[in-house]
Amino acid sequence: MYNFKNDYAEGAHPTILQRLLETNLIQQNGYGEDEYCKLAKSAIKERLNNQFAEIYFVSGGTQANLLVISSLLRPHEAVISASSGHIFTNEAGAIESVGHKVISVSTNNGKITPSDIERTLQAYQLKPHVVKPRLVYISNTTEVGTFYNKKELQDLYAQCKANNLLLFLDGARLGHALMAPGSDLLLEDVSRFTDVFYIGATKNGGLLGEAVIFNHREVGTDFPYIMKQKGALLAKGRVLGVQFLCLFEGELYLKLAQHANLMAAKIAEAIQQQGYSFLADVASNQLFPILPNALIVELEKKYEFYVWQKIDDEKSVVRLITSWATDPKIVDALVQDIQAGSNSF
Amino acid sequence: MYNFKNDYAEGAHPTILQRLLETNLIQQNGYGEDEYCKLAKSAIKERLNNQFAEIYFVSGGTQANLLVISSLLRPHEAVISASSGHIFTNEAGAIESVGHKVISVSTNNGKITPSDIERTLQAYQLKPHVVKPRLVYISNTTEVGTFYNKKELQDLYAQCKANNLLLFLDGARLGHALMAPGSDLLLEDVSRFTDVFYIGATKNGGLLGEAVIFNHREVGTDFPYIMKQKGALLAKGRVLGVQFLCLFEGELYLKLAQHANLMAAKIAEAIQQQGYSFLADVASNQLFPILPNALIVELEKKYEFYVWQKIDDEKSVVRLITSWATDPKIVDALVQDIQAGSNSF
Amino acid sequence: MYNFKNDYAEGAHPTILQRLLETNLIQQNGYGEDEYCKLAKSAIKERLNNQFAEIYFVSGGTQANLLVISSLLRPHEAVISASSGHIFTNEAGAIESVGHKVISVSTNNGKITPSDIERTLQAYQLKPHVVKPRLVYISNTTEVGTFYNKKELQDLYAQCKANNLLLFLDGARLGHALMAPGSDLLLEDVSRFTDVFYIGATKNGGLLGEAVIFNHREVGTDFPYIMKQKGALLAKGRVLGVQFLCLFEGELYLKLAQHANLMAAKIAEAIQQQGYSFLADVASNQLFPILPNALIVELEKKYEFYVWQKIDDEKSVVRLITSWATDPKIVDALVQDIQAGSNSF
Amino acid sequence: MYNFKNDYAEGAHPTILQRLLETNLIQQNGYGEDEYCKLAKSAIKERLNNQFAEIYFVSGGTQANLLVISSLLRPHEAVISASSGHIFTNEAGAIESVGHKVISVSTNNGKITPSDIERTLQAYQLKPHVVKPRLVYISNTTEVGTFYNKKELQDLYAQCKANNLLLFLDGARLGHALMAPGSDLLLEDVSRFTDVFYIGATKNGGLLGEAVIFNHREVGTDFPYIMKQKGALLAKGRVLGVQFLCLFEGELYLKLAQHANLMAAKIAEAIQQQGYSFLADVASNQLFPILPNALIVELEKKYEFYVWQKIDDEKSVVRLITSWATDPKIVDALVQDIQAGSNSF
Repeated sequence: MYNFKNDYAEGAHPTILQRLLETNLIQQNGYGEDEYCKLAKSAIKERLNNQFAEIYFVSGGTQANLLVISSLLRPHEAVISASSGHIFTNEAGAIESVGHKVISVSTNNGKITPSDIERTLQAYQLKPHVVKPRLVYISNTTEVGTFYNKKELQDLYAQCKANNLLLFLDGARLGHALMAPGSDLLLEDVSRFTDVFYIGATKNGGLLGEAVIFNHREVGTDFPYIMKQKGALLAKGRVLGVQFLCLFEGELYLKLAQHANLMAAKIAEAIQQQGYSFLADVASNQLFPILPNALIVELEKKYEFYVWQKIDDEKSVVRLITSWATDPKIVDALVQDIQAGSNSF
Repeated sequence: MYNFKNDYAEGAHPTILQRLLETNLIQQNGYGEDEYCKLAKSAIKERLNNQFAEIYFVSGGTQANLLVISSLLRPHEAVISASSGHIFTNEAGAIESVGHKVISVSTNNGKITPSDIERTLQAYQLKPHVVKPRLVYISNTTEVGTFYNKKELQDLYAQCKANNLLLFLDGARLGHALMAPGSDLLLEDVSRFTDVFYIGATKNGGLLGEAVIFNHREVGTDFPYIMKQKGALLAKGRVLGVQFLCLFEGELYLKLAQHANLMAAKIAEAIQQQGYSFLADVASNQLFPILPNALIVELEKKYEFYVWQKIDDEKSVVRLITSWATDPKIVDALVQDIQAGSNSF
Repeated sequence: MYNFKNDYAEGAHPTILQRLLETNLIQQNGYGEDEYCKLAKSAIKERLNNQFAEIYFVSGGTQANLLVISSLLRPHEAVISASSGHIFTNEAGAIESVGHKVISVSTNNGKITPSDIERTLQAYQLKPHVVKPRLVYISNTTEVGTFYNKKELQDLYAQCKANNLLLFLDGARLGHALMAPGSDLLLEDVSRFTDVFYIGATKNGGLLGEAVIFNHREVGTDFPYIMKQKGALLAKGRVLGVQFLCLFEGELYLKLAQHANLMAAKIAEAIQQQGYSFLADVASNQLFPILPNALIVELEKKYEFYVWQKIDDEKSVVRLITSWATDPKIVDALVQDIQAGSNSF
Repeated sequence: MYNFKNDYAEGAHPTILQRLLETNLIQQNGYGEDEYCKLAKSAIKERLNNQFAEIYFVSGGTQANLLVISSLLRPHEAVISASSGHIFTNEAGAIESVGHKVISVSTNNGKITPSDIERTLQAYQLKPHVVKPRLVYISNTTEVGTFYNKKELQDLYAQCKANNLLLFLDGARLGHALMAPGSDLLLEDVSRFTDVFYIGATKNGGLLGEAVIFNHREVGTDFPYIMKQKGALLAKGRVLGVQFLCLFEGELYLKLAQHANLMAAKIAEAIQQQGYSFLADVASNQLFPILPNALIVELEKKYEFYVWQKIDDEKSVVRLITSWATDPKIVDALVQDIQAGSNSF
């Protein structure tokens, strides 16, 4: 059985483990003050082309989300999120747990638009009886695999700034977004057109780790206190520093995302060739094809994946995810199995 | 310069890194449902001799503390801690951040006694104007390197049970406590005489990780929800599972702590031979010797450590910490430098 | 200008102020331990026919909601509410502020049904990545003026009990619900078919005050601590005790609600006679008629009320609220103005 | 039995009840937007001689404390309080419940000095492992009846400003402080030498109510949201507005406090004449005399008060509190009983 359920089924890219081994017994300062963290921050900062960027490494996406949001909001301030947003659906109430309401916005494709913002602000006028929207949370790629291009992000940020809102981008799969075919967004654009964002390593080659980046001086003050208070400051910060150094001293981070996207594209092509459609646009490493149930049953004999949603008695949506570690040979086999399975009906 | 400042200056024991490498590309379930976590839990549970124990792996001590405490207390309930307790002094308000007051008790040696409990309960009688003490937090070893022996822990637990209090033991350095010369406490005693505790790997051979153990059915319900909500549930839980498996499938965990204690004992012996005394009893891998300032200056040329407290114009307390990774040759050199330095005055 | 905007435009029923005057200088214990609180609790308890009921007086509805919910839920547990529910829309994030997500359910009439519960539970299965629904919040009357009859409440409670959910009824306008024409619900039914509820005085004759009632022993433990901690324990609890005593030693509470409902019914009848319809069923003291804009403009010259929602270029919904204090003569005048205004088009 | 236990045993000054009666049926806007609140705010503001002051009315002291503190602090920021401070001892963890640690400072007389601040700041240097002190909480009068004079408050405020700390004064008994014999502090001084403070009515003539005053623009933003969110925004804000209007349109507030202080001074004089001493300086309406146990037993036959603390087998400290409502005839009787009781030993 091969796992297409998620993009965290393997450990880390071998380069990372190798570097952990090589540096293992070199004594370092604790709590992120080690030299690998410093080098990794320099490497990332260089890519951002933003001298004001402040970078911190944390363990995972839910942690990054709650740290950033609790650090930026006063008690009565709220977050605007797509209803498919990870913080709204799949973080066990993390944001509410630090005191803030998440206002959900229905979307077609997981993406928030300037007009969504406007509509939400109009619905929250009855001061002081309602919460005060203060931060917009977006994901790139989104939870359904779509991405923001440069113009979309720029416009959204302008709308936020015009309304005294902060824009926070969850980049658990930022590499996949940047490397998505058709995306014109660069890492430095993300640093220009958001207030704060993070770059996820957990789902793109790391054992664990997200790099949180505050893009200017008005945000991010005292963030290490918040990290410590919420249990996010690792004694051996080197574990995160070494990983991000490996990913960003060269092009490894982007190459790994590119591999994941390519594997997904191959599978998508095979599916399209058989005449099947998709729930959401094929854009990155998450596919949501609508397949005949008989084919699904056949594929489940060799592959693990989620049956996402029933369409009718004949068809269902499944979710297939590829990653930096997805084996091209298995993808070839899957492509053949899709073709064979389809032809047999 | 060699670091005696803390016990997290190196990475992980090589066995652990080796195992991470070997298992790296084997696909696993996420979120702690991998086979290494399962094996590690079995291995630990066997040592506990407690069929009711429920085990969860988290990243660090502050995280373990806030997760356990927020999972067990209602909003008005409070924690009793030694004034030297990590949650009272060095966690940036983590426990208050999840809503609970930490009532501090002054102690001589970092340890809480049954009479401390009694005195505290008497001071908190004015319901509903005061918080309600509900959980006692202790550390073993304590923040000053002392340990609880079996009788002490048993008596404290009896006092807790007689007063409807939960007992929670912070075992960030539990290995060092169990292996301390003179300690008669076994791991299974800790599981009998506390409600919940954790076994720290971060400071004893791991890259990161603490194993939280709920000892009976009345505690621990729904803990994974709390872990997820506070950002403590790693997508790649295997990173923690592999480490605890290495540490507990055999005797590695205890052996590493024994090494740290032995290194400390050698240094302590040299210090005592020179006629110097200690702020706290020498018990485990933390030493608090009172040294002449001139000797301190001499040692600081080769070694890093904290000057803890001024005693008078001539003498200060320093803190020296050893670890599983402390090099015996460096310890020999330090011993010589102590002898040489002392003789030169 | 006469105010039909809300039911808290006047002070208290004169009987209450008179009693505050009479008892004013009699020394009493503080913090709800005065004799008026005790008598008021006895008077209410008698009506409940429930020996296990525990009663506490607090200042307002939002306060009651946050106290009850924070007292009953663990951090990862969530509330199910209608999307029109006061806690979801109009309490400035009070429930999120104490750490809990409010899951909203879309409804036609502000009421939650057993099938709403079932559907919600099915949507929150992905433990531990989602919050855990634990409490159902309903309002009676609802925010749109509808009410639950006995069978509806009984069925809802059975559904809750079958699913280990607590049922909490916001009774800010409970009097209006009990006295609504067509309602067969008695106060003692509310005590049987909910776990906890409150009886509002602020909107039915009091200066301020809600009586929170825990219906059985498994809920309500240590509630005074929660009250104190959240700033809800008045030093002069007598202020609340005297009011509830006046309202419940006889039939004043129900009579005042009946008056409000009667005034609303008169207005509703006049509106119906003119052939206008309503957004929600006419049931209690809140009316949502759909009126021609020209008539609205006419009425706004003499009366204050909210224009609730635009229907089309010709018509809008307005909200008219009556209260215990609504002057029957003004209601007669309003009826005439509705008739006159309608005839003039 | 006559109650000297506290200063909230009676209702409100009759003027207040009379005014509540007179205004009772005049329709008003809700939520503090009524005309009485506006007039009361104007009356208070005039006394403050501070055009930037923003005033809000809330129900009680614990509520005021938690609202102000949660509105001003970020999650990692902490409060410095005397160890006798109400928020540290008697508010059931209200401040921790909104997420903040209260750092306690031992004092002789309930008052914090600039050097206390300095010492505390030095103890909290280990960023980010400790909380960050950000707000100093003081009470005037203090919990032991002492007061700050103008120079003391001015110096403390200067120390706060020099260290980027906010100064918040709990004025639950501010009237008693301002009217204390020997106090040179004026209400307008409090508005100059603190960032935020409140004027308590609950303990000085009101049924309930504290007026929270933010003294400049950098504090207080969005406070109504916080009030609503924490359940502190009364629907009938007029209840508070009318009271503060009565107290501040003329000199009632200060006169009532003066009466309380005078009654206490008479009792104190009688006690001193008998040669007894006091635990704390006699300054306002709280007395802490050290009396022979035999006299205490005698007095307990006619008067209610707290036995505060045992001194030795012969003597104890008691606490006697007077109020705006204390009957001068009873005070005369108490004076005689003290004299008689003392002479009989």
